Amino acid sequence: MVVEIFPVPGLPDIEPGDDLTALLVEVLAPLHPRDGDILVVTHKVVSKAEGAIAPAATDEDYRNLVASEATSIVRRRGDMVIAVTRHGFVCANAGVDRSNVTGDRVVLLPRDPDRSAHRIRTRLQRDLGVDLAVVISDTFGRAWRTGVVDVAIGISGIRPILDLKGTTDMHGRLLEVTEVAIADEVAAAAELAMGKATGIAAALVRGVAFEPGIGRASELVRNPNEDMFR
Amino acid sequence: MVVEIFPVPGLPDIEPGDDLTALLVEVLAPLHPRDGDILVVTHKVVSKAEGAIAPAATDEDYRNLVASEATSIVRRRGDMVIAVTRHGFVCANAGVDRSNVTGDRVVLLPRDPDRSAHRIRTRLQRDLGVDLAVVISDTFGRAWRTGVVDVAIGISGIRPILDLKGTTDMHGRLLEVTEVAIADEVAAAAELAMGKATGIAAALVRGVAFEPGIGRASELVRNPNEDMFR
Repeated sequence: MVVEIFPVPGLPDIEPGDDLTALLVEVLAPLHPRDGDILVVTHKVVSKAEGAIAPAATDEDYRNLVASEATSIVRRRGDMVIAVTRHGFVCANAGVDRSNVTGDRVVLLPRDPDRSAHRIRTRLQRDLGVDLAVVISDTFGRAWRTGVVDVAIGISGIRPILDLKGTTDMHGRLLEVTEVAIADEVAAAAELAMGKATGIAAALVRGVAFEPGIGRASELVRNPNEDMFR
Repeated sequence: MVVEIFPVPGLPDIEPGDDLTALLVEVLAPLHPRDGDILVVTHKVVSKAEGAIAPAATDEDYRNLVASEATSIVRRRGDMVIAVTRHGFVCANAGVDRSNVTGDRVVLLPRDPDRSAHRIRTRLQRDLGVDLAVVISDTFGRAWRTGVVDVAIGISGIRPILDLKGTTDMHGRLLEVTEVAIADEVAAAAELAMGKATGIAAALVRGVAFEPGIGRASELVRNPNEDMFR
Protein backbone atom coordinates (compact mmCIF):
# COMPACT_ATOMS: atom_id res chain seq x y z
CA MET A 1 0.00 0.00 0.00
CA VAL A 2 1.27 3.48 -0.80
CA VAL A 3 2.04 5.43 2.37
CA GLU A 4 1.55 9.19 2.29
CA ILE A 5 2.73 11.63 4.92
CA PHE A 6 1.21 15.10 4.88
CA PRO A 7 2.80 17.84 6.97
CA VAL A 8 0.16 19.72 8.95
CA PRO A 9 1.05 23.41 8.77
CA GLY A 10 -0.66 26.32 10.46
CA LEU A 11 -0.42 25.50 14.17
CA PRO A 12 0.39 28.72 16.02
CA ASP A 13 3.00 28.91 18.75
CA ILE A 14 1.41 27.04 21.64
CA GLU A 15 1.32 28.44 25.18
CA PRO A 16 0.05 26.84 28.41
CA GLY A 17 -3.71 26.70 28.48
CA ASP A 18 -4.13 26.80 24.71
CA ASP A 19 -6.78 24.42 23.44
CA LEU A 20 -4.41 22.37 21.30
CA THR A 21 -7.08 20.00 20.07
CA ALA A 22 -9.32 22.82 18.88
CA LEU A 23 -6.34 24.18 17.00
CA LEU A 24 -5.59 20.73 15.56
CA VAL A 25 -9.19 20.43 14.37
CA GLU A 26 -8.79 23.74 12.55
CA VAL A 27 -5.53 22.90 10.79
CA LEU A 28 -6.51 19.30 10.02
CA ALA A 29 -9.89 20.05 8.46
CA PRO A 30 -8.47 21.34 5.14
CA LEU A 31 -6.47 18.11 4.79
CA HIS A 32 -9.66 16.00 4.89
CA PRO A 33 -8.36 13.29 7.19
CA ARG A 34 -9.80 9.81 6.67
CA ASP A 35 -10.62 6.91 8.96
CA GLY A 36 -7.43 4.95 9.51
CA ASP A 37 -5.08 7.90 9.12
CA ILE A 38 -2.56 8.41 11.90
CA LEU A 39 -2.02 11.89 13.32
CA VAL A 40 1.51 12.33 14.63
CA VAL A 41 2.02 15.29 16.96
CA THR A 42 5.40 16.24 18.40
CA HIS A 43 5.23 16.16 22.17
CA LYS A 44 6.44 19.75 22.45
CA VAL A 45 3.14 21.31 21.50
CA VAL A 46 1.32 18.85 23.77
CA SER A 47 3.63 19.64 26.69
CA LYS A 48 3.30 23.37 26.15
CA ALA A 49 -0.48 23.27 25.95
CA GLU A 50 -0.56 21.18 29.13
CA GLY A 51 1.83 23.51 30.93
CA ALA A 52 4.62 20.94 31.11
CA ILE A 53 7.27 23.62 30.86
CA ALA A 54 9.55 24.99 33.54
CA PRO A 55 11.86 27.97 34.03
CA ALA A 56 15.55 27.20 33.63
CA ALA A 57 17.70 30.30 33.41
CA THR A 58 20.99 28.61 34.21
CA ASP A 59 22.75 25.35 33.45
CA GLU A 60 22.29 24.44 37.10
CA ASP A 61 18.53 24.98 36.86
CA TYR A 62 18.58 22.70 33.87
CA ARG A 63 20.57 19.99 35.64
CA ASN A 64 18.21 20.14 38.60
CA LEU A 65 15.20 19.76 36.37
CA VAL A 66 16.74 16.75 34.65
CA ALA A 67 17.39 15.23 38.07
CA SER A 68 13.81 15.80 39.18
CA GLU A 69 12.31 14.43 35.95
CA ALA A 70 14.46 11.28 36.13
CA THR A 71 13.54 8.28 38.23
CA SER A 72 16.98 6.77 37.72
CA ILE A 73 20.18 7.37 35.79
CA VAL A 74 21.35 4.74 33.31
CA ARG A 75 24.64 6.42 32.32
CA ARG A 76 26.31 9.74 32.90
CA ARG A 77 29.27 11.16 30.99
CA GLY A 78 30.15 14.82 31.35
CA ASP A 79 27.02 16.85 30.69
CA MET A 80 25.28 13.92 29.06
CA VAL A 81 22.82 12.03 31.21
CA ILE A 82 20.89 9.00 29.96
CA ALA A 83 17.99 8.67 32.35
CA VAL A 84 14.76 6.81 32.91
CA THR A 85 11.72 9.07 32.92
CA ARG A 86 8.73 8.54 35.20
CA HIS A 87 7.00 6.96 32.19
CA GLY A 88 9.81 4.44 31.91
CA PHE A 89 11.41 5.84 28.75
CA VAL A 90 15.20 5.77 28.57
CA CYS A 91 16.46 8.95 26.93
CA ALA A 92 18.92 11.81 27.14
CA ASN A 93 18.31 14.36 29.90
CA ALA A 94 15.07 12.66 30.97
CA GLY A 95 13.35 14.34 28.05
CA VAL A 96 14.01 17.90 29.26
CA ASP A 97 14.50 20.01 26.15
CA ARG A 98 15.67 23.56 25.59
CA SER A 99 14.80 24.14 21.95
CA ASN A 100 11.52 25.31 20.46
CA VAL A 101 10.47 27.30 23.51
CA THR A 102 10.79 31.02 24.19
CA GLY A 103 12.49 32.69 27.14
CA ASP A 104 14.47 30.88 29.83
CA ARG A 105 12.17 27.92 29.78
CA VAL A 106 12.48 24.25 28.97
CA VAL A 107 9.91 21.74 27.79
CA LEU A 108 9.28 18.61 29.85
CA LEU A 109 7.53 15.46 28.68
CA PRO A 110 3.74 15.40 29.04
CA ARG A 111 2.71 13.82 32.37
CA ASP A 112 0.72 11.04 30.71
CA PRO A 113 1.29 11.06 26.95
CA ASP A 114 -1.11 8.15 26.28
CA ARG A 115 -3.85 10.08 28.01
CA SER A 116 -2.99 13.20 26.01
CA ALA A 117 -3.15 11.16 22.81
CA HIS A 118 -6.46 9.66 23.83
CA ARG A 119 -7.93 13.07 24.59
CA ILE A 120 -6.84 14.43 21.22
CA ARG A 121 -8.19 11.36 19.44
CA THR A 122 -11.59 11.46 21.10
CA ARG A 123 -12.10 15.11 20.33
CA LEU A 124 -10.97 14.77 16.71
CA GLN A 125 -13.42 11.93 16.34
CA ARG A 126 -16.21 14.12 17.67
CA ASP A 127 -15.33 17.32 15.82
CA LEU A 128 -14.08 15.93 12.51
CA GLY A 129 -16.13 12.73 12.44
CA VAL A 130 -13.13 10.56 11.57
CA ASP A 131 -11.47 7.75 13.43
CA LEU A 132 -7.79 8.68 13.53
CA ALA A 133 -5.06 6.99 15.50
CA VAL A 134 -2.85 9.44 17.39
CA VAL A 135 0.88 9.17 18.07
CA ILE A 136 2.75 11.70 20.22
CA SER A 137 6.41 11.73 19.23
CA ASP A 138 9.72 12.75 20.72
CA THR A 139 13.25 12.78 19.37
CA PHE A 140 15.54 10.18 20.96
CA GLY A 141 19.16 9.21 20.54
CA ARG A 142 20.08 5.55 20.33
CA ALA A 143 22.70 3.25 21.77
CA TRP A 144 25.39 2.30 19.20
CA ARG A 145 24.06 4.53 16.43
CA THR A 146 24.69 8.22 15.88
CA GLY A 147 21.99 10.78 15.26
CA VAL A 148 18.47 10.95 16.55
CA VAL A 149 15.18 9.57 15.31
CA ASP A 150 11.61 10.28 16.34
CA VAL A 151 9.83 7.65 18.40
CA ALA A 152 6.37 7.26 19.90
CA ILE A 153 5.93 8.29 23.54
CA GLY A 154 2.13 8.42 23.60
CA ILE A 155 -0.47 6.64 21.51
CA SER A 156 -4.17 6.10 21.07
CA GLY A 157 -6.06 3.91 18.65
CA ILE A 158 -3.04 1.96 17.42
CA ARG A 159 -1.31 -1.11 18.78
CA PRO A 160 2.30 0.11 19.04
CA ILE A 161 3.79 -3.31 18.36
CA LEU A 162 2.68 -5.19 15.28
CA ASP A 163 2.99 -8.81 16.33
CA LEU A 164 3.58 -11.12 13.38
CA LYS A 165 3.89 -14.25 15.52
CA GLY A 166 2.68 -17.23 13.55
CA THR A 167 3.12 -15.33 10.28
CA THR A 168 5.16 -17.07 7.61
CA ASP A 169 7.44 -15.57 5.02
CA MET A 170 7.09 -16.18 1.28
CA HIS A 171 8.63 -19.62 1.74
CA GLY A 172 6.24 -20.74 4.45
CA ARG A 173 8.95 -20.33 7.08
CA LEU A 174 7.90 -18.70 10.36
CA LEU A 175 9.20 -15.14 10.60
CA GLU A 176 12.06 -14.81 13.10
CA VAL A 177 11.42 -11.20 13.84
CA THR A 178 7.84 -11.05 14.96
CA GLU A 179 7.41 -7.78 16.80
CA VAL A 180 7.65 -4.65 14.70
CA ALA A 181 7.70 -1.35 16.57
CA ILE A 182 5.27 0.13 14.11
CA ALA A 183 4.41 3.20 16.20
CA ASP A 184 8.09 4.13 16.29
CA GLU A 185 8.37 3.66 12.53
CA VAL A 186 5.35 5.91 12.08
CA ALA A 187 6.93 8.58 14.30
CA ALA A 188 10.19 8.37 12.34
CA ALA A 189 8.36 8.57 9.02
CA ALA A 190 6.40 11.61 10.18
CA GLU A 191 9.61 13.41 11.10
CA LEU A 192 10.68 13.19 7.46
CA ALA A 193 7.69 15.34 6.49
CA MET A 194 7.96 17.73 9.44
CA GLY A 195 11.65 18.49 9.78
CA LYS A 196 13.16 20.02 12.87
CA ALA A 197 13.46 23.71 12.04
CA THR A 198 10.24 24.29 10.15
CA GLY A 199 7.86 24.88 13.03
CA ILE A 200 5.64 22.11 11.71
CA ALA A 201 4.60 20.07 14.71
CA ALA A 202 2.20 17.55 13.23
CA ALA A 203 1.82 15.22 10.26
CA LEU A 204 -0.93 13.01 8.94
CA VAL A 205 0.19 9.52 7.92
CA ARG A 206 -2.02 7.61 5.49
CA GLY A 207 -1.83 4.05 4.20
CA VAL A 208 -0.17 2.24 7.10
CA ALA A 209 -1.59 -1.23 7.82
CA PHE A 210 -1.63 -0.94 11.60
CA GLU A 211 -3.69 -2.86 14.11
CA PRO A 212 -6.31 -0.63 15.74
CA GLY A 213 -6.72 -0.99 19.47
CA ILE A 214 -6.15 0.70 22.76
CA GLY A 215 -2.40 0.39 23.02
CA ARG A 216 -0.02 2.03 25.46
CA ALA A 217 3.37 3.54 24.68
CA SER A 218 4.76 1.60 27.64
CA GLU A 219 4.49 -1.51 25.44
CA LEU A 220 7.41 0.01 23.54
CA VAL A 221 9.56 -0.01 26.66
CA ARG A 222 11.61 -3.10 27.31
CA ASN A 223 11.04 -4.71 30.68
CA PRO A 224 13.97 -3.45 32.80
CA ASN A 225 14.57 -6.99 34.08
CA GLU A 226 15.06 -8.25 30.53
CA ASP A 227 17.04 -5.24 29.35
CA MET A 228 20.72 -6.00 28.90
CA PHE A 229 21.67 -2.33 28.54
CA ARG A 230 20.81 -0.69 31.80
CA MET B 1 6.65 18.58 1.72
CA VAL B 2 4.40 15.55 1.26
CA VAL B 3 6.35 12.33 1.56
CA GLU B 4 5.17 9.35 -0.49
CA ILE B 5 6.35 5.78 -0.13
CA PHE B 6 5.60 3.40 -2.97
CA PRO B 7 6.07 -0.32 -2.46
CA VAL B 8 7.98 -1.86 -5.36
CA PRO B 9 6.32 -5.18 -6.17
CA GLY B 10 7.36 -7.76 -8.72
CA LEU B 11 10.87 -8.73 -7.65
CA PRO B 12 11.20 -12.50 -8.05
CA ASP B 13 12.81 -14.70 -5.43
CA ILE B 14 16.49 -13.83 -5.66
CA GLU B 15 19.21 -16.48 -5.87
CA PRO B 16 23.01 -16.11 -5.87
CA GLY B 17 24.23 -14.74 -9.17
CA ASP B 18 20.95 -13.08 -10.12
CA ASP B 19 21.39 -9.65 -11.63
CA LEU B 20 19.49 -7.80 -8.92
CA THR B 21 19.96 -4.39 -10.45
CA ALA B 22 18.62 -5.49 -13.84
CA LEU B 23 15.58 -6.84 -11.99
CA LEU B 24 15.25 -3.58 -10.05
CA VAL B 25 15.35 -1.61 -13.30
CA GLU B 26 12.49 -3.74 -14.59
CA VAL B 27 10.23 -3.39 -11.56
CA LEU B 28 11.04 0.28 -11.00
CA ALA B 29 10.39 1.47 -14.55
CA PRO B 30 6.57 1.32 -14.28
CA LEU B 31 6.76 3.50 -11.14
CA HIS B 32 8.48 6.30 -13.08
CA PRO B 33 11.09 7.16 -10.45
CA ARG B 34 12.23 10.78 -10.34
CA ASP B 35 15.48 12.52 -9.52
CA GLY B 36 15.69 12.86 -5.74
CA ASP B 37 13.66 9.75 -4.95
CA ILE B 38 15.23 7.28 -2.56
CA LEU B 39 15.17 3.58 -3.37
CA VAL B 40 15.15 1.46 -0.22
CA VAL B 41 16.09 -2.19 -0.71
CA THR B 42 16.06 -4.74 2.09
CA HIS B 43 19.50 -6.23 2.47
CA LYS B 44 18.19 -9.77 2.06
CA VAL B 45 17.79 -9.54 -1.69
CA VAL B 46 21.19 -7.85 -1.96
CA SER B 47 22.85 -10.53 0.17
CA LYS B 48 21.20 -13.32 -1.79
CA ALA B 49 22.19 -11.87 -5.16
CA GLU B 50 25.74 -11.45 -3.91
CA GLY B 51 25.85 -14.98 -2.54
CA ALA B 52 26.06 -13.85 1.10
CA ILE B 53 24.14 -16.88 2.28
CA ALA B 54 25.40 -19.94 4.07
CA PRO B 55 24.16 -23.42 4.92
CA ALA B 56 22.98 -23.85 8.51
CA ALA B 57 21.10 -27.08 9.07
CA THR B 58 21.43 -27.13 12.85
CA ASP B 59 21.33 -24.65 15.72
CA GLU B 60 25.03 -25.28 16.19
CA ASP B 61 25.74 -24.36 12.55
CA TYR B 62 23.81 -21.20 13.17
CA ARG B 63 25.72 -20.34 16.35
CA ASN B 64 29.01 -20.96 14.58
CA LEU B 65 28.02 -18.67 11.74
CA VAL B 66 27.05 -15.93 14.18
CA ALA B 67 30.43 -16.32 15.86
CA SER B 68 32.29 -16.07 12.56
CA GLU B 69 30.29 -13.05 11.39
CA ALA B 70 30.88 -11.20 14.68
CA THR B 71 34.06 -9.27 15.43
CA SER B 72 33.09 -8.95 19.08
CA ILE B 73 30.22 -9.71 21.43
CA VAL B 74 28.53 -6.85 23.27
CA ARG B 75 26.13 -8.94 25.36
CA ARG B 76 25.01 -12.53 25.50
CA ARG B 77 21.96 -13.91 27.27
CA GLY B 78 20.79 -17.44 26.55
CA ASP B 79 20.44 -17.81 22.81
CA MET B 80 20.48 -14.04 22.27
CA VAL B 81 23.78 -12.54 21.17
CA ILE B 82 24.25 -8.82 20.58
CA ALA B 83 27.35 -8.58 18.44
CA VAL B 84 29.45 -6.17 16.43
CA THR B 85 29.58 -7.06 12.75
CA ARG B 86 32.69 -6.57 10.62
CA HIS B 87 31.04 -3.38 9.32
CA GLY B 88 30.79 -2.09 12.88
CA PHE B 89 27.03 -2.46 13.29
CA VAL B 90 25.78 -3.60 16.69
CA CYS B 91 22.88 -5.98 16.24
CA ALA B 92 21.37 -9.31 17.23
CA ASN B 93 23.15 -12.43 15.97
CA ALA B 94 25.64 -10.37 13.95
CA GLY B 95 22.97 -9.95 11.29
CA VAL B 96 22.66 -13.68 10.51
CA ASP B 97 19.02 -14.29 9.65
CA ARG B 98 16.99 -17.42 9.10
CA SER B 99 13.78 -16.05 7.61
CA ASN B 100 13.02 -15.29 3.96
CA VAL B 101 15.38 -17.89 2.58
CA THR B 102 14.65 -21.42 1.37
CA GLY B 103 16.22 -24.64 2.56
CA ASP B 104 18.64 -24.95 5.47
CA ARG B 105 20.29 -21.67 4.66
CA VAL B 106 20.71 -18.35 6.42
CA VAL B 107 21.26 -14.88 5.03
CA LEU B 108 24.35 -12.92 6.07
CA LEU B 109 24.88 -9.20 5.70
CA PRO B 110 26.35 -8.01 2.39
CA ARG B 111 30.14 -7.76 2.59
CA ASP B 112 30.19 -4.05 1.78
CA PRO B 113 26.65 -2.66 1.76
CA ASP B 114 27.75 0.88 0.79
CA ARG B 115 29.45 -0.55 -2.26
CA SER B 116 26.36 -2.61 -3.08
CA ALA B 117 24.23 0.53 -2.80
CA HIS B 118 26.63 2.47 -4.98
CA ARG B 119 26.59 -0.21 -7.65
CA ILE B 120 22.80 -0.29 -7.70
CA ARG B 121 22.63 3.50 -7.84
CA THR B 122 25.10 3.85 -10.71
CA ARG B 123 23.32 1.29 -12.82
CA LEU B 124 19.86 2.74 -12.16
CA GLN B 125 21.22 6.10 -13.17
CA ARG B 126 22.50 4.62 -16.43
CA ASP B 127 19.51 2.46 -17.27
CA LEU B 128 16.66 4.61 -15.98
CA GLY B 129 18.25 8.02 -16.47
CA VAL B 130 17.32 9.19 -12.98
CA ASP B 131 19.45 10.20 -10.04
CA LEU B 132 18.13 8.13 -7.13
CA ALA B 133 19.66 7.79 -3.69
CA VAL B 134 19.86 4.17 -2.52
CA VAL B 135 19.47 2.85 1.02
CA ILE B 136 19.98 -0.81 1.90
CA SER B 137 18.02 -1.65 5.04
CA ASP B 138 18.03 -4.25 7.75
CA THR B 139 15.77 -4.90 10.72
CA PHE B 140 17.38 -4.16 14.09
CA GLY B 141 16.27 -4.40 17.68
CA ARG B 142 17.07 -1.55 20.05
CA ALA B 143 18.35 -1.11 23.58
CA TRP B 144 15.57 -0.12 26.02
CA ARG B 145 12.73 -0.37 23.51
CA THR B 146 10.80 -3.43 22.43
CA GLY B 147 10.19 -4.41 18.85
CA VAL B 148 12.33 -3.92 15.79
CA VAL B 149 12.66 -1.11 13.27
CA ASP B 150 14.38 -0.96 9.92
CA VAL B 151 17.63 0.98 9.73
CA ALA B 152 20.13 1.83 6.99
CA ILE B 153 23.17 -0.45 6.65
CA GLY B 154 24.30 0.71 3.21
CA ILE B 155 23.80 3.97 1.35
CA SER B 156 24.67 5.84 -1.79
CA GLY B 157 23.79 9.36 -2.86
CA ILE B 158 22.47 10.51 0.52
CA ARG B 159 24.22 11.93 3.55
CA PRO B 160 22.97 9.58 6.30
CA ILE B 161 23.08 12.23 9.01
CA LEU B 162 21.27 15.51 8.40
CA ASP B 163 23.35 17.98 10.36
CA LEU B 164 21.31 20.98 11.48
CA LYS B 165 24.20 22.58 13.39
CA GLY B 166 23.77 26.34 13.31
CA THR B 167 20.09 25.98 12.46
CA THR B 168 17.69 27.89 14.67
CA ASP B 169 14.20 26.98 15.74
CA MET B 170 11.16 29.20 15.18
CA HIS B 171 12.29 31.40 18.09
CA GLY B 172 15.78 31.96 16.76
CA ARG B 173 17.20 29.58 19.35
CA LEU B 174 19.89 27.16 18.19
CA LEU B 175 18.53 23.63 17.86
CA GLU B 176 19.84 21.33 20.60
CA VAL B 177 19.45 18.21 18.59
CA THR B 178 21.45 18.81 15.47
CA GLU B 179 22.12 15.42 13.94
CA VAL B 180 19.12 13.61 12.54
CA ALA B 181 19.66 10.02 11.42
CA ILE B 182 17.67 10.67 8.28
CA ALA B 183 18.77 7.47 6.48
CA ASP B 184 17.46 5.41 9.39
CA GLU B 185 14.17 7.32 9.34
CA VAL B 186 13.90 6.64 5.61
CA ALA B 187 14.52 2.93 6.18
CA ALA B 188 11.87 2.84 8.93
CA ALA B 189 9.39 4.71 6.75
CA ALA B 190 9.98 2.32 3.85
CA GLU B 191 9.25 -0.67 6.10
CA LEU B 192 5.75 0.72 6.64
CA ALA B 193 5.06 0.34 2.93
CA MET B 194 6.80 -3.01 2.53
CA GLY B 195 5.73 -5.05 5.55
CA LYS B 196 7.54 -8.18 6.66
CA ALA B 197 5.47 -11.03 5.24
CA THR B 198 4.54 -9.61 1.86
CA GLY B 199 7.62 -10.53 -0.11
CA ILE B 200 8.02 -6.88 -1.10
CA ALA B 201 11.71 -6.11 -0.75
CA ALA B 202 11.94 -2.54 -2.03
CA ALA B 203 10.19 0.79 -1.76
CA LEU B 204 10.55 4.14 -3.46
CA VAL B 205 10.48 7.13 -1.10
CA ARG B 206 9.61 10.51 -2.59
CA GLY B 207 9.60 13.99 -1.07
CA VAL B 208 12.31 13.72 1.58
CA ALA B 209 14.54 16.78 1.90
CA PHE B 210 17.84 14.95 2.23
CA GLU B 211 21.32 16.18 1.55
CA PRO B 212 22.81 14.50 -1.52
CA GLY B 213 26.40 13.35 -1.23
CA ILE B 214 28.60 10.34 -1.00
CA GLY B 215 27.80 9.22 2.52
CA ARG B 216 28.75 6.01 4.27
CA ALA B 217 26.55 3.93 6.53
CA SER B 218 29.44 3.83 9.00
CA GLU B 219 28.60 7.46 9.81
CA LEU B 220 25.52 6.01 11.52
CA VAL B 221 27.69 3.97 13.86
CA ARG B 222 28.70 5.58 17.12
CA ASN B 223 32.43 5.69 17.73
CA PRO B 224 33.02 2.74 20.11
CA ASN B 225 35.17 4.98 22.32
CA GLU B 226 32.28 7.37 22.83
CA ASP B 227 29.64 4.67 23.15
CA MET B 228 28.41 4.27 26.72
CA PHE B 229 26.57 1.04 25.94
CA ARG B 230 29.18 -1.44 24.89
